[in-house]
Amino acid sequence: MVRVGIIGASGYSGAELLRLLIGRSDVSVNVLVANTSAGKNVEDLYPRFSGVSKLRFVRLEELDTHDLDLILLALPSGEAMNIVPTHISNGIRIIDLGGDFRLSDEKSYETYYGSPHAYPSLLGNVTYGLPELFHEDIRSSRFVSNPGCYPTSAILALHPVLKERIVEPDNIVITSLSGVSGAGRKASIDLSFTEINENVRAYKITGHQHVPEIKSVLQRSTGQMPLFSFVPHLIPVTRGIYTTIHCTLRGNHEVSEIHEVYNNYYGTAPFVRLTERIPQIQSVAHTNYCDIYSTITHETHQLIIISVIDNLVKGAAGQAIQNMNIMFGLKETTGLL
Amino acid sequence: MVRVGIIGASGYSGAELLRLLIGRSDVSVNVLVANTSAGKNVEDLYPRFSGVSKLRFVRLEELDTHDLDLILLALPSGEAMNIVPTHISNGIRIIDLGGDFRLSDEKSYETYYGSPHAYPSLLGNVTYGLPELFHEDIRSSRFVSNPGCYPTSAILALHPVLKERIVEPDNIVITSLSGVSGAGRKASIDLSFTEINENVRAYKITGHQHVPEIKSVLQRSTGQMPLFSFVPHLIPVTRGIYTTIHCTLRGNHEVSEIHEVYNNYYGTAPFVRLTERIPQIQSVAHTNYCDIYSTITHETHQLIIISVIDNLVKGAAGQAIQNMNIMFGLKETTGLL
Amino acid sequence: MVRVGIIGASGYSGAELLRLLIGRSDVSVNVLVANTSAGKNVEDLYPRFSGVSKLRFVRLEELDTHDLDLILLALPSGEAMNIVPTHISNGIRIIDLGGDFRLSDEKSYETYYGSPHAYPSLLGNVTYGLPELFHEDIRSSRFVSNPGCYPTSAILALHPVLKERIVEPDNIVITSLSGVSGAGRKASIDLSFTEINENVRAYKITGHQHVPEIKSVLQRSTGQMPLFSFVPHLIPVTRGIYTTIHCTLRGNHEVSEIHEVYNNYYGTAPFVRLTERIPQIQSVAHTNYCDIYSTITHETHQLIIISVIDNLVKGAAGQAIQNMNIMFGLKETTGLL
Amino acid sequence: MVRVGIIGASGYSGAELLRLLIGRSDVSVNVLVANTSAGKNVEDLYPRFSGVSKLRFVRLEELDTHDLDLILLALPSGEAMNIVPTHISNGIRIIDLGGDFRLSDEKSYETYYGSPHAYPSLLGNVTYGLPELFHEDIRSSRFVSNPGCYPTSAILALHPVLKERIVEPDNIVITSLSGVSGAGRKASIDLSFTEINENVRAYKITGHQHVPEIKSVLQRSTGQMPLFSFVPHLIPVTRGIYTTIHCTLRGNHEVSEIHEVYNNYYGTAPFVRLTERIPQIQSVAHTNYCDIYSTITHETHQLIIISVIDNLVKGAAGQAIQNMNIMFGLKETTGLL
Repeated sequence: MVRVGIIGASGYSGAELLRLLIGRSDVSVNVLVANTSAGKNVEDLYPRFSGVSKLRFVRLEELDTHDLDLILLALPSGEAMNIVPTHISNGIRIIDLGGDFRLSDEKSYETYYGSPHAYPSLLGNVTYGLPELFHEDIRSSRFVSNPGCYPTSAILALHPVLKERIVEPDNIVITSLSGVSGAGRKASIDLSFTEINENVRAYKITGHQHVPEIKSVLQRSTGQMPLFSFVPHLIPVTRGIYTTIHCTLRGNHEVSEIHEVYNNYYGTAPFVRLTERIPQIQSVAHTNYCDIYSTITHETHQLIIISVIDNLVKGAAGQAIQNMNIMFGLKETTGLL
Repeated sequence: MVRVGIIGASGYSGAELLRLLIGRSDVSVNVLVANTSAGKNVEDLYPRFSGVSKLRFVRLEELDTHDLDLILLALPSGEAMNIVPTHISNGIRIIDLGGDFRLSDEKSYETYYGSPHAYPSLLGNVTYGLPELFHEDIRSSRFVSNPGCYPTSAILALHPVLKERIVEPDNIVITSLSGVSGAGRKASIDLSFTEINENVRAYKITGHQHVPEIKSVLQRSTGQMPLFSFVPHLIPVTRGIYTTIHCTLRGNHEVSEIHEVYNNYYGTAPFVRLTERIPQIQSVAHTNYCDIYSTITHETHQLIIISVIDNLVKGAAGQAIQNMNIMFGLKETTGLL
Repeated sequence: MVRVGIIGASGYSGAELLRLLIGRSDVSVNVLVANTSAGKNVEDLYPRFSGVSKLRFVRLEELDTHDLDLILLALPSGEAMNIVPTHISNGIRIIDLGGDFRLSDEKSYETYYGSPHAYPSLLGNVTYGLPELFHEDIRSSRFVSNPGCYPTSAILALHPVLKERIVEPDNIVITSLSGVSGAGRKASIDLSFTEINENVRAYKITGHQHVPEIKSVLQRSTGQMPLFSFVPHLIPVTRGIYTTIHCTLRGNHEVSEIHEVYNNYYGTAPFVRLTERIPQIQSVAHTNYCDIYSTITHETHQLIIISVIDNLVKGAAGQAIQNMNIMFGLKETTGLL
Repeated sequence: MVRVGIIGASGYSGAELLRLLIGRSDVSVNVLVANTSAGKNVEDLYPRFSGVSKLRFVRLEELDTHDLDLILLALPSGEAMNIVPTHISNGIRIIDLGGDFRLSDEKSYETYYGSPHAYPSLLGNVTYGLPELFHEDIRSSRFVSNPGCYPTSAILALHPVLKERIVEPDNIVITSLSGVSGAGRKASIDLSFTEINENVRAYKITGHQHVPEIKSVLQRSTGQMPLFSFVPHLIPVTRGIYTTIHCTLRGNHEVSEIHEVYNNYYGTAPFVRLTERIPQIQSVAHTNYCDIYSTITHETHQLIIISVIDNLVKGAAGQAIQNMNIMFGLKETTGLL
């Protein structure tokens, strides 16, 4: 029995963690920390848990980790970094779903997250929790940083073809469409129904904090330094990341050859589906799958890759649980199919 | 040329007033007051006005009414009541789109709006701006209180059949569905896309502030005291009020007779359309029309009435402009077709 | 191991049956019949089943029931009635998710479904599959007719208070809002995104085929003849039924007393949640729960009941599986929590 | 008074033409042709025209052009080509909103539209109705082919920077998001609410018929042969085209310089707005504006351009009316602001 505490449990990722863990017989969610909702029952914020969970949010001070095997952190940027150091020394396992430990470079962190990192010395010793690339590291890790939603879709799409030097590392264009739940549960005019409905807008062009994450992970995993533009768009769906990527091919390649490369990398990965249909968000919604499609435009000598996930599942809570399963020697797919 | 100032111009009703007035050659919008957005251009909040209006929001203190013929107030509850008294004595005409002056009864105001009224003595001397019922009063009025969105749909539907004693005044059930823009432009988790999308919820059952408004206006206009239940629901559309009403018939009536009654009341009203099709929100969206449909269920001996409007137009800004047209001796439909 | 065949497997209810059954170790879906999609894989129509199910649709002629314990029919109106008689005599168990066998009265069927019933003699011998009311009948039945989506929400809401004679049997107003998936998977301009989005419309006022179903079941279950108006509305959500009901109270009652009545009827029902919050569709989406809320408006002496379900789960596939579990002596909640 | 007939008046573009023309005092819509809806009133299909237009659809055979100055064709692909030749010889002016005459190359037409062109000899003599580029041609033309929705957004974005040789003509990536009304008014499972809502899908990658249109028009207008990838995506909004373009810069450029180029080209164009905010669909919805934003990513040495329109207005009916205004010597903006 893995005994779990969720810190930052009142947000959408926290609630999704609870949804995915609640029915499991091999996991027990013992404590939900959420300072701003402390004292409320989980069903007060999420009525769908009525009759399903009687858990009540507590304040961080009330957290007692003696009976826990794992802490899942699902906090806004800048909060986890102040909590992790205490617990890491206790020997408890930790998975952080936020962005505080995804970048290994202190300076890059400050540039993209807007304030200095509180514990930069920790940055080099974190496992990046993308199981399709770093399975072995995750298995033996005690502290995993869960990937961002955009990076999950982009890195899974690009890793095989960059690693195999099928595409040029520069000249990559990544266009992503995101559901609104990715922005978190918060009061904001920009996220109100009236502003999002019947609307689309790009945002953070050239400056999104997921840019250095994608870059540094791909550099590490492929040995090449990718150069890309990343334009995220907010669209009127609740869940989903739809990432369309253009790369320039190196030399001549047939589609079948590309498909074989992907198959070599992900043929046995339980949550990557290589598809010959153009993907849809509905196919992956509420699942931990990442659907990847690739095709060649011979006229422009480009590889087009489409990679689709549910931002709350494979892009957050599902992937965290996949990591948890690996860290605790459980079957990787438990509770996720 | 009617010279207009809009106070509370940064909300959805304020922006809709601007949209409807901006192209008119007989009206000039001279000033936009919005304390929280003062200093910003209107296009900073509403980019659709880029290239269309160069107006800038100012603070209330900066308002100079010397060159204005009309003030349109589109403020949250409780704010207009402190502004109106100053201006009413100046002789300027005023239309208040908010709820501060819709109830004539001070006690009822306090019960439903949650705090005492600042100038209860004014409550009895306000014209209720529903042109289909009070055209003559509006024409000669200097201070008009614009109806609420739900009351506009409910009162227009019920007035003829109550007045003609075709239905019982008690035992009325009013079920309304409202678009989200009706809740105004504000930061709120409850109004966020993620909470509204793929969702419906009823709210303020038995306690909505539009209940006493509907009741008192109908009592005044029909001479009968209606007794009804009103259940509003929030649904995932931006614009629209869809009101479905059940009444008990008095005596026997044919549908054709009912239709004739409605025709007698609204046959010449430019913004009421009596329809034999079941109405849709899309038919009235972005227009000042109220579509009314009526049918009889002989088995239960009931009259069912459906009444549909755009909450921002006939339910707010459009109706205010209809009132303005009447008050200033302009053609009632100017700028609204 | 319950061996299942789904007939009409290409529609939304059919796909939802597959989704709910596919992960179970005690059920095996052996065959999917869908004439118009015969030869296609299930993932061709529903890519979300990619990597999840390798089943292929076959034609009805190819159906061999020798290795089946249960047939689930999810067909458009008028089709199941021609299939059921053959199989019923084979002794195989049958659950029909369509409307063909929900009415016991042949004449009523013809009036509301628009054509005569092919096997009227069967109409009297079918079990109505609403487990909260007819659990014992279902347990011993070999042929269950699964309730309609609107009737599920309305009957569960009304049964206790009618049976206990807390409300008058006449003078009931039922207003329902339905998600679009309830109309099935079909090519239709009326169901296109452009016509549904930013829109609401009522339909089939006074003439919906669920009217006689609600009436006859309640009459049977409560011994009283309910008289009601039913107005269904189509709203822009994919899933969900939101039913708001007004009844006239008989005598004086406190809310607490009403809640106790509901608790007496449903306190141990695993899929009915009695809630003191006003319900939302999101709380029941993708679940088999029916959330019921009740309150009294003393001014109009009415009981207001709100009852919410997911039309594809408790309103169709989930309820069918609940029935299956009961018929086969499995735990009622298996695969549904 | 311009006397107009609309052929293909029952589709969304046809209805939008009617909406935009109906209130004008200098235009009279005399006839609406729609074979499949012949005999119905326009309000039967579009209830929003109730009380607004009493026009009735007629069959093409009933069309008498003697009292018409202009025919607007809004037909599915392949239909206009059989109608145009008859009328072109009559001397009546024609604007075709469909794709039949947008390509000058017969072979390209056959490749992308899937069947041979019926009157290839006409292809070379058509004016391409993009007023910002071909104003003078349009003024003197009797037959204008109205641009496609995607091409309108892409060509307006690319023309100035290609013409001024600021970007490389190859290596262009065009990603577009389209509202569903762009697919027309038709019965199709793929366009049903349930399939579109909470979903995104790319389609026709590398093979969309707007590819040769964009290419040939830009080649003609800039003297360079652009090489680009175009990936359209269908998203759950009714109206809007959101086009995000990546180009490689030639030499070094500052953003201010790019903005000046756009200003030189479009500074006086009444319907192009150059914006320093990232554009949104809501800003252009229901208007004839094209909002264009541009920025440089120095790291990748790329120009990113975002271009947004309402597909039914600037992408179809609004642009057609802009063309009509020019052809008939009216003010270009009449009826469009």
